[in-house]
Amino acid sequence: MAMHSMLSYDNPLFGKFAFYSGVVIGKTLLMSALTVRQRLTYKIFVNPEDVAYCGGKAPTIGDQGVERVRRCHQNDIENVFPFVFLGFFYILTSPDPWWATLLFRVFALSRCLHTVCYLASIPQPSRFLTFMTGYVVTGYMAVAVIRAGRF
Amino acid sequence: MAMHSMLSYDNPLFGKFAFYSGVVIGKTLLMSALTVRQRLTYKIFVNPEDVAYCGGKAPTIGDQGVERVRRCHQNDIENVFPFVFLGFFYILTSPDPWWATLLFRVFALSRCLHTVCYLASIPQPSRFLTFMTGYVVTGYMAVAVIRAGRF
Amino acid sequence: MAMHSMLSYDNPLFGKFAFYSGVVIGKTLLMSALTVRQRLTYKIFVNPEDVAYCGGKAPTIGDQGVERVRRCHQNDIENVFPFVFLGFFYILTSPDPWWATLLFRVFALSRCLHTVCYLASIPQPSRFLTFMTGYVVTGYMAVAVIRAGRF
Repeated sequence: MAMHSMLSYDNPLFGKFAFYSGVVIGKTLLMSALTVRQRLTYKIFVNPEDVAYCGGKAPTIGDQGVERVRRCHQNDIENVFPFVFLGFFYILTSPDPWWATLLFRVFALSRCLHTVCYLASIPQPSRFLTFMTGYVVTGYMAVAVIRAGRF
Repeated sequence: MAMHSMLSYDNPLFGKFAFYSGVVIGKTLLMSALTVRQRLTYKIFVNPEDVAYCGGKAPTIGDQGVERVRRCHQNDIENVFPFVFLGFFYILTSPDPWWATLLFRVFALSRCLHTVCYLASIPQPSRFLTFMTGYVVTGYMAVAVIRAGRF
Repeated sequence: MAMHSMLSYDNPLFGKFAFYSGVVIGKTLLMSALTVRQRLTYKIFVNPEDVAYCGGKAPTIGDQGVERVRRCHQNDIENVFPFVFLGFFYILTSPDPWWATLLFRVFALSRCLHTVCYLASIPQPSRFLTFMTGYVVTGYMAVAVIRAGRF
């Protein structure tokens, strides 16, 4: 019984996992809106039907104002999605709640800072350090999940 | 106890979430098959070892017949995966089943129509509206999940 | 009650799902590290701030040493993430544990071999066959999840 209440908002740790997962997934979703804004502002479209409707030059690939946002979005996909997957398993390994909450908070903060560093072109190694922080958290959770599993 | 039976096919709302998640994930998977078909039909390959086996010109990047399918696939990854993540959390917030089912159906329908609009190059703003419909559903679920969570 | 203990390490099948999911997600995460290594070794960077810090030529897009790793990473995103999503639902359909374990193992093995084939440029159809093996497993699970769901 104790085992199951783990995947429920009745479990404080799950409530925290839900909160921070919602934040990082929501942040990832915002990158789509930002891409749309960039495309509309600078009239950079890839599909002919988009050019026909919105105007702008011929279909353009590789504009750096758009591509920077897309690279940031892709980095979220590569890091945020594994974090949420592993989080579901990790919670079920009965981790220490204080430690697990710390991991979730560090991850969420590192991803928000990563986005700021990327979009504002802040000099390196800032972006690299924010990426590495989230990456180490996710890697740690991956090891914990595998060790608790069965071959 | 009621809380836990939520993540089970015994819960009718979960059964619906599973059905519509299966549909949109399955649709996303079909984009891989379609990419393979496009590559084989038009002999457009990126890797030298693929050209060596299948024939065709030198490795080619950026063919628009292939890239349109890939952009559609990427849009699914950016939107379908967050929907499924958030759906697991959202079901646990005990939403009204009628309303939640409506959200799942609207999302699944909007994503199927988005694919049709993209692949058939239907004039804008059709594709944009199908994208926005799914995006609003996912955004609504993200807010509900965060509000039910703990800081 | 039996239904719920399914999403718990107390359920041997869940323990196996967690293990193999952790392996394939961990393998996907390793692609990020490999991309970083490729970029640093060959001094291939996309962002001006990366070039400013690490040296190397002007921002470069499309270097094949880096792009091969990135294509392999993208293929993982397109295939591994759907597998993990569907696995959660699939376990709740009460599959035969022996059969489900076999599916998880075949998937994990096929994805590891896919990475070897891609990174080592092993002649086709090796990579295609490893991709198809994983794809068929995931497709099978998608059908099982949809059939167990409710319209």
